[in-house]
Amino acid sequence: MPLPKTPLLAVDCVVVDGMGRVLLIRRKNPPYKGMLALPGGFVEIGETVEAAARRELAEETGVEAGRLSLVGVYSDPNRDPRAHTCSVAFLTRAKHHHASAGDDAEAVEWLGNFRRVEFAFDHRKIVADAFKLMKKIASASKNY
Amino acid sequence: MPLPKTPLLAVDCVVVDGMGRVLLIRRKNPPYKGMLALPGGFVEIGETVEAAARRELAEETGVEAGRLSLVGVYSDPNRDPRAHTCSVAFLTRAKHHHASAGDDAEAVEWLGNFRRVEFAFDHRKIVADAFKLMKKIASASKNY
Repeated sequence: MPLPKTPLLAVDCVVVDGMGRVLLIRRKNPPYKGMLALPGGFVEIGETVEAAARRELAEETGVEAGRLSLVGVYSDPNRDPRAHTCSVAFLTRAKHHHASAGDDAEAVEWLGNFRRVEFAFDHRKIVADAFKLMKKIASASKNY
Repeated sequence: MPLPKTPLLAVDCVVVDGMGRVLLIRRKNPPYKGMLALPGGFVEIGETVEAAARRELAEETGVEAGRLSLVGVYSDPNRDPRAHTCSVAFLTRAKHHHASAGDDAEAVEWLGNFRRVEFAFDHRKIVADAFKLMKKIASASKNY
């Protein structure tokens, strides 16, 4: 049986610091060129999604990811105008705060107040889901 | 920029009944032909992972999925001998218990004691993770 064609696979990282700020990049390339987005990118064949998340974060921001927690899987066929792309999103803490733009990122910033920010793709939804997960983790650790 | 090649995208369903039994299929085709596996399959372009999980479950077992809870994302490059395939696994309850084999399934069964069963792929790990998630959900609902 020939192998099927399936959606492309990507990853995104929600990196949060102790003040609740999120690490965002300004996109250098289309789609959504110039807009704020989560660090992330396509998964390579032979690479786990976790390894891809660490690699993309390091390439785009210079930041090394801590422990990764799965936020969700985002697979709406229209979420990326290039092609149907399914993204696996992770929440993580940075091992240090020194971020510098690289690869697909024109700039990189820690953003605290992103209520009025226009995000690329469905990244606003991913950030919101990541904050819900953080609350759950905090509440679960209180119960033990 | 041309679109990259990424791992294939699949879904698997851990369907559990009120007695803790799991719905398994006996695989009709290679790889792991004749072995027990979770219902699942490749995601089609234009389809969300949730829709693919419901479709594959219905095609292989005739069972309609209830609410889907994300168990995990399994992306070890060696987990499928055909090609690097990333699977998104969901936990769900069946809306009814009348299962009948179809599509890639030679037989279908509700299995209660699967400690000594040899599973196809990494499905033992996925089932174990799904049971951990069930415990978490039960414990969280007790705390509210």
